[in-house]
Formats: sequence, C-alpha cells, structure tokens
Amino acid sequence: MQVLKLGGSVITVKDQPMTADDDNIRRLCEEVKAAWPTPLVIVHGGGSFGHPVAKKYGIAEGFTSERQVLGFTRTHQAMVALNTIIVDTLLDLGVPTISLSPSTFIMTRDGRIEDINLEIVGRLAVKGILPVTYGDAVVDRTKGFSILSGDQLAVRLATGLGASRLLFGVDVDGVYTSNPKLVPEARVIESLPLDKLDGYIKIGEALTTDVTGGMLGKVSEAKTAVNAGIEVFIGNASKAGVILKALRGEAVKGTILKR
Amino acid sequence: MQVLKLGGSVITVKDQPMTADDDNIRRLCEEVKAAWPTPLVIVHGGGSFGHPVAKKYGIAEGFTSERQVLGFTRTHQAMVALNTIIVDTLLDLGVPTISLSPSTFIMTRDGRIEDINLEIVGRLAVKGILPVTYGDAVVDRTKGFSILSGDQLAVRLATGLGASRLLFGVDVDGVYTSNPKLVPEARVIESLPLDKLDGYIKIGEALTTDVTGGMLGKVSEAKTAVNAGIEVFIGNASKAGVILKALRGEAVKGTILKR
Repeated sequence: MQVLKLGGSVITVKDQPMTADDDNIRRLCEEVKAAWPTPLVIVHGGGSFGHPVAKKYGIAEGFTSERQVLGFTRTHQAMVALNTIIVDTLLDLGVPTISLSPSTFIMTRDGRIEDINLEIVGRLAVKGILPVTYGDAVVDRTKGFSILSGDQLAVRLATGLGASRLLFGVDVDGVYTSNPKLVPEARVIESLPLDKLDGYIKIGEALTTDVTGGMLGKVSEAKTAVNAGIEVFIGNASKAGVILKALRGEAVKGTILKR
Repeated sequence: MQVLKLGGSVITVKDQPMTADDDNIRRLCEEVKAAWPTPLVIVHGGGSFGHPVAKKYGIAEGFTSERQVLGFTRTHQAMVALNTIIVDTLLDLGVPTISLSPSTFIMTRDGRIEDINLEIVGRLAVKGILPVTYGDAVVDRTKGFSILSGDQLAVRLATGLGASRLLFGVDVDGVYTSNPKLVPEARVIESLPLDKLDGYIKIGEALTTDVTGGMLGKVSEAKTAVNAGIEVFIGNASKAGVILKALRGEAVKGTILKR
C-alpha cells in the first residue's frame, strides 16, 4: 500500500481562486493510470479552492461566530469541486476511483485527528478501488470545527493502513539546503535522516505557504510516518514522470526522509 | 429535528440519464430556505443519476465480477454529481449546507445498514448546518458492496437522531387506495394506521419502480420509524408548497402513517 499526497500548488493555479491546473491534473492522473493497478490512496490539498475560503472565514481558528457556519460549508464544497475534477478524470481513464469526504468520516480535537474510520478506506483499497480524499473543513470536538490539512491526513492514512511508502508530490524538487528561490547554490537533500530534520525544517519554511503549513508542516507531520518505519519521499509533481517513477519505486530526484 | 427524503423521480428527469430536474430542485431548495433555520437533514434519491449505472453493473446484487468495480465507483460519482447540484443551489440561497457521502460513513451487511457514524451528522445539524446525503453504492461486509436506498437511510437517520418527523417527498399525492394511474376513482389515504399497512402495501407497488423498491419499499421501510414514534408523512414534492407546509407542520394533502 502506498499513499500519495498531491500538493494544492501542483493541481491548482495558486493566484486564481477556484482554478484547477487542468494540465497537471490530467498528466498526474495519467501517471497514476500507468502505475495502476497498485494498492494506493490519494490525498490532495486545497490550493486555490479550499484555502482562500477557509482563510476568509477563519475556519482553522474554530467556531467563534455564526457567520463562519456558511464559510465552513463553502470551504467543504470548494474542496468537493476540486475533488470531483480529479475523480472524474481518473474515472474517464478507467481507474475505479471513489471520492472520500473527510468531514464525513473524521473528527478532530484541537485540529488533530481523533476519530477516523479506516475500515471503509482499507476495504475499498484492497478491492482494487482507488480512494481519493483531501484536506477539508471538519467537525472538531473542542473548537467546533477546524481545518484538517491534507498532510496530516496523508500521514494518518499511511500509518493507519500500514502503508510501506508515503509520497509527497510538491512544486519543488524536494527539501533544499537553502531556499532555492533566494539562494542560487541551494541543492536538494537526497537523503535526510530524522535526527537532522529539525535543523533543516526552518529552511523549507519560506518555500510555500498556505493555511496548513507548507513545507514546514509537511516535514514536521512526516516525522510520525518515518518513525513508524514508512519510507517518505518528497518530489516534484509538477515535472512529468516524477510521480510515476516514485509510484513504481524507481530512482528519481527528490528527498527521502529516513530514521 | 426533521428528516426530509426527496425522491429521485422528483429531482431528476426519469427517462433521461444524468439529467436533473432543475426547476424542481430550485423550487424545493427555495422551500427549504423559506422554512430555514430549522434542525433538518435531507436525504435524496438517485433517479436518472444513480439507478441506470447501478442497474447496468448489478451493484445491488453484490460483488460477483471485477468489471463491477468500475461500476461501483461510477454509481457513486453519479450520485456525487446530483448531490453537488442540490448542495450548490442551497449554498447559493445562503443555506449552510454540507454534503455527506454515505459510502464514506456507512457500511451495510446484506444490504442493511450495520455501521453508521451518527455523531458527525448530529453535531452538524445542531450547529445550524444542513447535512444533505443520499442513496449510494456502499461497502457491504458480506456482499462486498451494495446499494443503500435513500429510503432506508432516511429512516435510519430519523430513528438514530431522534427526529420528531420524517417527510417523504414523492411524485404522487401520497399512498392511494388504488393505483391512480390505472384506477380513476383512486383516492389518497390521509391517515394510514400501521396495522392496515400490509393490506395497502401491495397497492403502491406499481406506482413507481426503481432498483430500491419504489413506494412498496418506502412504506415498508417507514414502519420502523412509525414504530419508533416518529410521524411519517408522504406527500407530493412535485407540487409547489407541499414540502414547505410539511416542514412547517401545517396541514397539507398527503398520507400520514400512524401507529
């Protein structure tokens, strides 16, 4: 079993609200199709669909005002819209894909997953069905509601389903020695041991920012998976063939997080 | 708390695959908006979205062949498409609405609901959010997968959430003494006691047919709710104002099932 997280910055156009990156989505779905059949769960981020709405209504901060109720539902429905584009594309390609809506089977406490029904996801995946889920606005037992990041969800699914590998498809080539957008000599760290993570974590901070934490949040979440013995790979899903090779377990540019 | 079931024959055009009845959907959403805010859960049927696909692949019969896997996912995604139309219409009207996908939080055994997470639905409904769910292709513990009818789901939600009333919006005026499409003198039974149900059940059989049982299935399912002390109403959702009046508890033409 593998879990593939596709970053919102890869599958949407970041500066244009509610705009999918149709070319990237189509290409990534074709890469998944080329690796199919294989036991797999996909988790995708929100990009320009979920994040602007969630930010506008302060959903991540929890329930403080009645006007957020409509914002909560609009955030979720924006994510359903993005998810539908991906699921429909995979179904068109003949990959038996099912949408799983996090707000329907997950509850958080203070923003961390507390309840999750893994039996349905697991049963679907072993039947040869590809579950596609996403970061979402969810019910939170203490805050009323919260934003569940796709990164947190991907790690939880990987550990809960006993996945062997967790692949993060992002819009850069991996974790860098410095911010490559600022430092020309920055290079990708091919193999990053867990005990050196904390030193590097701040490096990634400026690479991408979103309401759920960007590269900092990703690497920080991923520690749990690494500690559980799962191989974690971070690579560039904006470049053709990277995800296909990663899914097949072939060597490809990126960062592998190690114990 | 009330549960409103909207029949697939009301919200879709039965003879045209994947065709919504936009006028009925818009009008019914406006009726819900006029009754809002009120603790409510909506369940809708599949009509020309879910049923043709489910039939084609024999999903209700369970998993017998690999080719059904794609059919299972296509049935679900057809229902997501119909659900999205309804949820988007309600959100446009300013009603905070959330889509709940049954295949994500329900498992059946031999076609009957065995596992259902009612906590999330309940928490959403009391927060002033309107959950909208539907009949769906779901994972079945014995058959592999199955079709969960919107009628069975509506009854389970009504009993599980302690609803006071369960409203079935169908395309006829209620339960008739005879089939009104064949017998001109057929009239609507206004009040139908449970002990007389069995005698009447066969009458409704020919009124509407779908893979989940039509009027026969509906009345048969509804017995559980009636026995739990829930007032069950069956009325014509194709006629303007019937559902609005029913939601407000006002007198309106239809059948009330009684203990």
